[in-house]
Amino acid sequence: MRAEVVGVGTELLLGQICNANAQWMSGRLADIGVDVVHHQAVGDNLDRIAASFTVALGRADVLLVTGGLGPTQDDITREGLSRALGIGLVRDPAIEEFLRERFRSLGRAMPDSNLRQADVPEGARPIMPERGTAPGLALVTDAGRRVYLVPGVPSEMREMMLGTILPELAAAAGPSALASRTVRVTGVAESRVAELLDDLFVGRANPSIAYLAGGGEVKVRVTAKASNRDEAESLIEPVADEVARRLGDHAFTTRDQDLADVVADLLASTGTTVACAESLTGGSLGARLSARPGASSYFRGSAVCYTARAKADVLGVSRETLEGPGAVSEECAREMAAGSRRIFDANLGLSTTGVAGPDAHDGKPVGTVCIGLAWDGESFARSFRAPGDREMVRRWAEQAALDLLRRRLAGLPGPSAR
Amino acid sequence: MRAEVVGVGTELLLGQICNANAQWMSGRLADIGVDVVHHQAVGDNLDRIAASFTVALGRADVLLVTGGLGPTQDDITREGLSRALGIGLVRDPAIEEFLRERFRSLGRAMPDSNLRQADVPEGARPIMPERGTAPGLALVTDAGRRVYLVPGVPSEMREMMLGTILPELAAAAGPSALASRTVRVTGVAESRVAELLDDLFVGRANPSIAYLAGGGEVKVRVTAKASNRDEAESLIEPVADEVARRLGDHAFTTRDQDLADVVADLLASTGTTVACAESLTGGSLGARLSARPGASSYFRGSAVCYTARAKADVLGVSRETLEGPGAVSEECAREMAAGSRRIFDANLGLSTTGVAGPDAHDGKPVGTVCIGLAWDGESFARSFRAPGDREMVRRWAEQAALDLLRRRLAGLPGPSAR
Repeated sequence: MRAEVVGVGTELLLGQICNANAQWMSGRLADIGVDVVHHQAVGDNLDRIAASFTVALGRADVLLVTGGLGPTQDDITREGLSRALGIGLVRDPAIEEFLRERFRSLGRAMPDSNLRQADVPEGARPIMPERGTAPGLALVTDAGRRVYLVPGVPSEMREMMLGTILPELAAAAGPSALASRTVRVTGVAESRVAELLDDLFVGRANPSIAYLAGGGEVKVRVTAKASNRDEAESLIEPVADEVARRLGDHAFTTRDQDLADVVADLLASTGTTVACAESLTGGSLGARLSARPGASSYFRGSAVCYTARAKADVLGVSRETLEGPGAVSEECAREMAAGSRRIFDANLGLSTTGVAGPDAHDGKPVGTVCIGLAWDGESFARSFRAPGDREMVRRWAEQAALDLLRRRLAGLPGPSAR
Repeated sequence: MRAEVVGVGTELLLGQICNANAQWMSGRLADIGVDVVHHQAVGDNLDRIAASFTVALGRADVLLVTGGLGPTQDDITREGLSRALGIGLVRDPAIEEFLRERFRSLGRAMPDSNLRQADVPEGARPIMPERGTAPGLALVTDAGRRVYLVPGVPSEMREMMLGTILPELAAAAGPSALASRTVRVTGVAESRVAELLDDLFVGRANPSIAYLAGGGEVKVRVTAKASNRDEAESLIEPVADEVARRLGDHAFTTRDQDLADVVADLLASTGTTVACAESLTGGSLGARLSARPGASSYFRGSAVCYTARAKADVLGVSRETLEGPGAVSEECAREMAAGSRRIFDANLGLSTTGVAGPDAHDGKPVGTVCIGLAWDGESFARSFRAPGDREMVRRWAEQAALDLLRRRLAGLPGPSAR
């Protein structure tokens, strides 16, 4: 079963938003073994919407469309489908009643223009929203293609996908499944990862392997297709295991977990608490460590100290360090880590300092990153040069700090030089 | 001039990454008056890549393709284009020399397989990378369509777009320009924004107006097309001014600035320094305030205090408050703000506390947000309920805190109830 995802909305073509709906839907469809073979995005233009649907229906078994289902004049996805299929629009009484009821419950009169949402291509079946306001539609064409129209609002789209569409497609797709496993690595360049793994790739179609670099890490994804999930998993297993073996302790997950999640699991399972001292990262390290529900059991806090004075007053960094090696130094990173551990009463203290740019600072070049870790009476620090712009330097610093914490919690040796 | 952007890469169709390249390219093309009328994404499959190009070349004047230009076996964009156009691949001597030189400079032998990157569709002109490793290609078809192939790595794609492709297309597009202005609002529901502005929308095609809600704010975008930039701007001006007038001080920008940037400008221009005390937001408020170059002139630091003890020890929140109204209260927000101002020696202190979820805490329901602001001897706090999941509650808290700071710095009255 081949699927195509079409996003409708001029905002996509103007670059105002990213088509994150297509990404999310594709991931969920892959989970149930539906091959997504194309994405399209098209603006709020009737001719072009209809033409996009015609192209998609010529090459896919399932057409999923997001956006353009609201009550306003630029919501013309319904019209686009009826034109592509050469069928008329008919008033759907269930949708009409749903709309009238919604306005009644708000105590407001419904403008007649809102009834546009009840005019659906002949033969379409409504998918009523639980929390949203725009009904979705499902339709099977004369040629047996399945078409689903869902709202562009991500939460409303997801509700209909999870509640109605994915279960229907999973049942229809039958015993076919795609499985993938993603091993993620930080602290190693993509070219080095490729060197370590490239021979696994040669001449292998199933499972296939792919690399994705970005955000201070490299993802290695192994994907297999089979008649069922278990079989797909068993195809993946030896390859993924070999990938993990070759990458060794550079691999922080074999299950596509975020590095902060891996660290959170280790903190929780070892009953360890952590606090941070941040200069370079400005709070983003704390934000990542506190992102997950239940973070308060292991994350104590973070002292973001952007000035030398705050480093001294709040974290207790010594005058000797600030006036000697300076605020961007391994010494400062160690004292910051120790300070955060002390003021937040945590088992471990983790720190970042450095030069995010765009200008050099204190005689240190842009991209200089120092990270520190403090534990019971001891501390460690390392420094390196991160590439890229301010945002990228900050991201690399987060990753390196989290990886240092991971290695400490997992009892691994310190990270190698980059 | 109509353009189509095609992303090549199975990772897009598996939902592993979002097609952010298409978004960025579309935004830049709109800036120079090139209409992007479709996006497509297609996997690393030769037949489907070629078919996608054929569809695109049938409806667009310019085809921009990202991805699949590397040296590995799954990089088959070059082959896809030659198949779609029915032309052969020829070895490009300039690319061959570029590749050999790159390996020489690394002191490594070049695998012969790397020469695939030098095999280009007949008539294609290389676009040499300055920093990246994969050359781009430009070609004009017999039918006069312009085709550009660029790498999928965002920084390499951007380099070629900015250095070569956008200047060429701007010259070719001639006197036609699209201009847009985006007014952004926080603290007002999208439905209320639409009520205030909807009549501006009726029957108006140029300029057009569109709403985008998300991330704790609503964007109102006014777009106009004309034969030149000045004319487009003059079409926009009265509509954008009317939009801004109706939205009043809820609008924090008429130039599509991020709220944190607006606040940063106000801090810098008024010579005001700020520090934060964060519980709910975990550091993300500090991260946003420190994201911009030069942040150290106005951002002093942030105390992320996730425990009651840290709120007391680090920020000096009183025992009476922690044991009475509790850590999630307007009282606590006021004392946190005052504490951050004091320990970081800043003019203003800004705080967040609340319940991000998924569970209620301390008798307060999920979504409870309290934000505080402290200045010379005085403080203010407000609380509200934010919708959505943990991430969304944190984002709304950031936005509300930043908006409180904006209102203080701009001398505006406090925010209205949501």
